[in-house]
Parts: sequence; C-alpha cells; structure tokens
Amino acid sequence: MQAWGMEASVRETGGPPAVVARVGSDPGKKTVLIYGHYDVQPPEPLEEWTTPPFEPRIADGKVYARGSADNKGQVLAHLLGTALELEERGELPVNVIYVVEGEEEVGSPRLEEFLTAHREEFACDVVAISDTGMVASGYPTLTYGLRGIAALELVVRGPSHDLHSGNFGGAVMNPATAVARLLASLHDADGRVAVEGFYDAIPPMEAWEREALAALPAGDAEIREMTGAPALFGEAGYSGMERIGARPTAEVNGMGGGYQGEGTKTVLPKSAFAKLTFRLVPHQDPQVILNLVETHLKKHLAPGVTLELTRGHSAAATVCDPKSGFGRAATRALELTFGKPPALVREGGSIPIVESFARILGAETLLLGLANPDCRAHSPNENFDLANLESGIRLHRALLQELARA
Amino acid sequence: MQAWGMEASVRETGGPPAVVARVGSDPGKKTVLIYGHYDVQPPEPLEEWTTPPFEPRIADGKVYARGSADNKGQVLAHLLGTALELEERGELPVNVIYVVEGEEEVGSPRLEEFLTAHREEFACDVVAISDTGMVASGYPTLTYGLRGIAALELVVRGPSHDLHSGNFGGAVMNPATAVARLLASLHDADGRVAVEGFYDAIPPMEAWEREALAALPAGDAEIREMTGAPALFGEAGYSGMERIGARPTAEVNGMGGGYQGEGTKTVLPKSAFAKLTFRLVPHQDPQVILNLVETHLKKHLAPGVTLELTRGHSAAATVCDPKSGFGRAATRALELTFGKPPALVREGGSIPIVESFARILGAETLLLGLANPDCRAHSPNENFDLANLESGIRLHRALLQELARA
Repeated sequence: MQAWGMEASVRETGGPPAVVARVGSDPGKKTVLIYGHYDVQPPEPLEEWTTPPFEPRIADGKVYARGSADNKGQVLAHLLGTALELEERGELPVNVIYVVEGEEEVGSPRLEEFLTAHREEFACDVVAISDTGMVASGYPTLTYGLRGIAALELVVRGPSHDLHSGNFGGAVMNPATAVARLLASLHDADGRVAVEGFYDAIPPMEAWEREALAALPAGDAEIREMTGAPALFGEAGYSGMERIGARPTAEVNGMGGGYQGEGTKTVLPKSAFAKLTFRLVPHQDPQVILNLVETHLKKHLAPGVTLELTRGHSAAATVCDPKSGFGRAATRALELTFGKPPALVREGGSIPIVESFARILGAETLLLGLANPDCRAHSPNENFDLANLESGIRLHRALLQELARA
Repeated sequence: MQAWGMEASVRETGGPPAVVARVGSDPGKKTVLIYGHYDVQPPEPLEEWTTPPFEPRIADGKVYARGSADNKGQVLAHLLGTALELEERGELPVNVIYVVEGEEEVGSPRLEEFLTAHREEFACDVVAISDTGMVASGYPTLTYGLRGIAALELVVRGPSHDLHSGNFGGAVMNPATAVARLLASLHDADGRVAVEGFYDAIPPMEAWEREALAALPAGDAEIREMTGAPALFGEAGYSGMERIGARPTAEVNGMGGGYQGEGTKTVLPKSAFAKLTFRLVPHQDPQVILNLVETHLKKHLAPGVTLELTRGHSAAATVCDPKSGFGRAATRALELTFGKPPALVREGGSIPIVESFARILGAETLLLGLANPDCRAHSPNENFDLANLESGIRLHRALLQELARA
C-alpha cells in the first residue's frame, strides 16, 4: 500500500492490529471509507482441501485458498483499483480511507472502540464493503440487508467421569442424549424455530420484497445445486432465498460428546456440547433472542444433568437504503461495470460492524459483493474468481467516480 | 507363564493373537478353562488421566493403568494363583487351560472360529472368567447374568460440503440437527426406549429377582455416588440396579458434527454422526433389535438428508445357573475366600463369548468378578485394587479345589 502511494500503517487495537491507509485529505472532496478484514475462518477440516489452504493455487480462472474470497481477494480488488487510478490519473476523485481489521470472523470485538477512539481520523461520508456474495457468478449485486447473529455455546454435564455403558447404562441420563434433545427441541417439524417468542418482533415481509426476491436470477434449484444437498428444507411458507435473506434461523455449527474415533467404545460420556448461532433479521434484538433461547433450553433440559451456557458474539441485522444518493451511485457504478443493473438483495450472512459505522461515524454502508455463490467461504476449497477480481478493480474506479458526483 | 511351568504359546487367530497355556492333561481330573483378554479400551481422553494410562502407578492400594481392572489385573490373579499352587504343591487339583485373547473389547470376532478350530484342545468341564464387577468394594460376587449388546453407527449427510451458515442457513436441513432428532427420538420422557417393539420379547422380572437385587449391598445412593451424576435417571418403574442389570438400554457412546474447536465457526456441517450401543437382556435377539432400531431411525429421519447405518458387534444376553454343581462350587470358593456368601447378581456389561463357550465347548461359565464398582473400567484413571488381586489369588486356589470335588 505504501509502494502504491498510500499513507499506510499497522495500528494497535489491543488485539490483532488493524491496517489503516489513506489517500488524500482534500476537504473539498467526499471521503469514502473502505472496510475489509484479513482474518479468516479456521481452515479445518484440512483433509478436504485439494491443496493446502494457505498455499494459493490458481486453476479454472479461480484462486483457491482460505481467505481468497472472504475477504482478502475482495479487499485486493479495491486496493488495485486505487493503485491503478493513482498510477493513471495521479489522484482520486474522492479521499479514501482503508480500514482492514483482523477480528471480523469473531464479531469485531475491538473495532468499535478503535473507531470511537479515532472518530475524527475516520470521519467519512460513506462506507463501502466488498464482503458479501453475488446472487449468481459475476452478477452485479447490491446487498441492502444483512442478517444479524447471536452465538451461544451449551455444555451438558452428567456423571463426574466417563462411565462404562454396560456397568452404568440405564441408571443415569446420558449427556449426549440430553444435548440431542435440546437441539431437537429448537425446531418444529415444519422447520420453524420452536423457541417461544422467537418470531414475535418480526413484521411480515412486504409484497414488493417477496416479488423482488422471486425475480432474482437464483432460486431453489440454484441453491440446491450450490449446496449439494439432496433436497432443500426450511421454514414452511418461504422460498429458499426468503429463508436465507429474510427469515431468522437456529443452526448447530458444531456438536460433540463421547467417543469419536474409529470403531466402538462403550462409554457413557460425562459431558456433551453444542455450538449454536442464530441468524437474525431486522427488529430482532440479539440479547432478547438469547434470553428466549436460554429460557427454552433450561425448560427442555433432561433430568439428571446440568446445563452451562456461554454467550458468544452478537450483532443486530442491518438494512440499508438502495434509494439513497449513495445507494443510487453504487447502483450506477455496478451497472456501468457489469453492463446490467444490479440485483438488490438481502443476504443471509452478518457483518456486525455495519451497524457500528452508522452509529459511530454516522455513515451508511454500501455492500458490493464480489464473491460468487460457489466461493465456499468458511469451507474447504474456498476460492475467488479472477474475473471478479478484474471486475472489482473496475467497479472500485467507477464507484469512486460515481460517489464523487453523488 | 512358561517360567511358572505352564505350556504356554502365542497362537495365530487371523487377528491379534491369543495366548494359550495349559497345566496338566490328566484324564482323571476335571478341566477348567480360564478366559481373559489383554486388549483394552482406547485410553482417550488422555488429558483426564492423572498419570499416563500405560505407565502403571500404585497409589492408595490400587494400581492405576488402562487395562488394570479390565482385564489384565484379574487375569493376573488367576495366573499367580496357579503359579503359587504349582510352587507349593507341585500340581493342580484340576487340569487348567488359559485362553487370553486380544479382541474382547471389539466383540471377539475371531474367537469363535478359533475355539471351533481347536474344539478338542479346549475341551473342558467348566469355564471361569474374572471380567466382571463386585457389587461393592471387595464384596464376593457371582454374576449369573450379563446383558447382551448390539452396536450401530449412523451417519447423516446433507450438503456436499460444509456451508457458510449465514449464506445458506435456513434453506437446508442441518445434519447435526437431523442426528440430534434421531438421538432424541430413541427415548420417551420416562426414560423408556421408544423404538417400537424394543421390549416385546422380554418377560416381566420375577419377584424373587427383584427382591434379591433390592437386598444387594448397593442401591441408588451407591450408584449415584459411583457415577458422580447430579441425580439418577432411567426407565420409570425400576430401581437403579434393575435398570443396569435387568433392563435393556439405548446409549449414545459418541456423537459429533461440525466445528468442535475453540470459539465460533459459523458453519453448517455437511454431515454428523452418532455411535450407539444397545444393552440387551435375555430373550432379545440382537439382530432383531437392530432391525427394529434401523426401521425406527429411517422413520424418524428429517427431510433433506440421507442416512447411512453400519452395524457393529453384537451378542445376546446370557444367564447362568448359580444352583448347578459348578455354580455351587464357585459359591463355596467365594465364601471360603471372603468369609461371607457371595452376592448373586445380573450385571449390565456384556461378555459376548460366554454364549460361545456354551455352544462350542458345551461348558457353562462362572463369572467371578474382582473389579470394584469404582474401578473406572473404560474411563480415565482405570484402577485395580491390590487387595482384590490378593483375594483373587486365594479365590483361584479355592475355586480349583472346589471344582475338583464338584
């Protein structure tokens, strides 16, 4: 970044440092903050990667590596766009601030304090982030809504040590069974979350939103194809895109207990656990939801075991306005770059700091995803399409021009 | 064993070899076959052992090591008894054959063929095994019933790869949730196994049996103490000893799926699994039970996922007759050794080869356990009481005398 002419530095946050860079500070120009992150999800399971996750490999026009799509490749598109613009024109049409942090995947616990502490340095008119997905490969996409998230880990404990399942089986509650009952209790047969009050705050979807989602170039067939699942399943009464973008979920991210090696071990485990995340939609408060879930879990706990609950990170859902001045500028930049108007979508993922940018910096956030639906973010063989890298560079340049005149 | 004067050899079985030894082949004497095993359960979780599982440590009058109680310590008591008897008297009152195998913990898949192939060599009048538990520490115990076992592993598969739980959560069935539902479906709220037909073959318990179990020096308070569970829980209408000895179970020995490391990984796992064993009582046929369970699991499978079932080892429950000639001889030997009559119990564990000895060699089996209830067989910090080793040596010698005159 320094070689490209940016004022770049590594900044202490109290945790993994942030990389901050600036190009220009002309008070006569608008200022655009571009956010990204360099941290990644754990690469496990390693054996499912075709090549090692941290040795990038280019094949079929894609780069395969952990973090290629989420989020380094997308950040790189912006950086290269800035670099080219500087090389060819010597200046940018707007001031640009880059903030690339290292804790997005764990809910950005220190970024809010960092932004607050440097509120004046990061003062900006608008934030742009490329950390979302396209509705189809290479299809321009403006994400105007993101789900929130609330994480909760549960541990069920029973006997003081693993027991011989013959010598004691039948006389004590099995913690693995107790965890299974809790997880099974989270949904009804129709795929609805069965936690009392879970949906209470959510208004019905607007008709125009359902129509817009139905018109997208991705439907149930595409979702099934991308996931590779034998069949889709979800909350009754909603399409796949609605279930992902506009409806909340309760998901088991991981569970375990007892013997997991080869063959049989006739043990009755002393404990078992599950890691849960709830994806939330607008009007659901993460702490209220976790309160409801904890009440539910305590109520459904089997006898003869104890329950330990630990809350993880959380963030409310966010919705931006694609009809604002900056929203329209982003729409134009996408159309200019890709040759067609962008899909307007609500996405299932969560970027907790979008809400922080609004609150601390008073800036709205434009979500301009460059990741294909099959990029396998968070999964083995994560990849980033080099065509999207190239489009992203052009999009960045068009975006700066459009934002300058917005 | 050779140094003590036994004809001992390591014998091929096609798998882990068996150790076979013989003392005497006098046709005028009875022949006693003593069975044991040198294989052990996996030592995991290693971090819960106070000292390494394969470095025996003596403390508080016990030896701590994997296999100390199950089963090497108990076999050693017999061997030392034979060695002392030979040293002090020069001969044994009966012919003795030792068969110490290496696959008991995985259901002895090759022992039956080995016994059959050497049926004449192993011809005997009675079999004695010390691989069971005492009802209380140092309390003489003759086990006249053992539960059977049937093992089944299930894998539920959904998406072709782990998915981002934000980008796809809500649109596909989560395999971890699907496994949880299957496990939760195995029992009703009263602790009964909810598999249709599971109890059909089982006659009600006899009144004398319930009275005998109630009179044992171990009740619910002792079971709770030994397990360290916050409270006992099991099939409604039965005591802890009845639930363990006389009623069948469905237990989760292990389950897993998704991310199990520290912190959060927002993944929707592509698969999840569980390892189950069912402890069976007399009149339950293991294959019939597995058929019923498989039907149950297929019926309760969630939509949008597939189910893969793999059967493991199995064995029917066995009941011996403590009132037979050899049964009375064993009872006398126990009373002589410990100074009080033995408890007669049905135990929750399974020793699959007891049924094989009856069928192939036509011999009944005496189960003379030397392991304390808190020996932690199959668990970290497994231990064997040195007082029981000493008692076991004396018991072996008394047993040979009593069997000789039975």
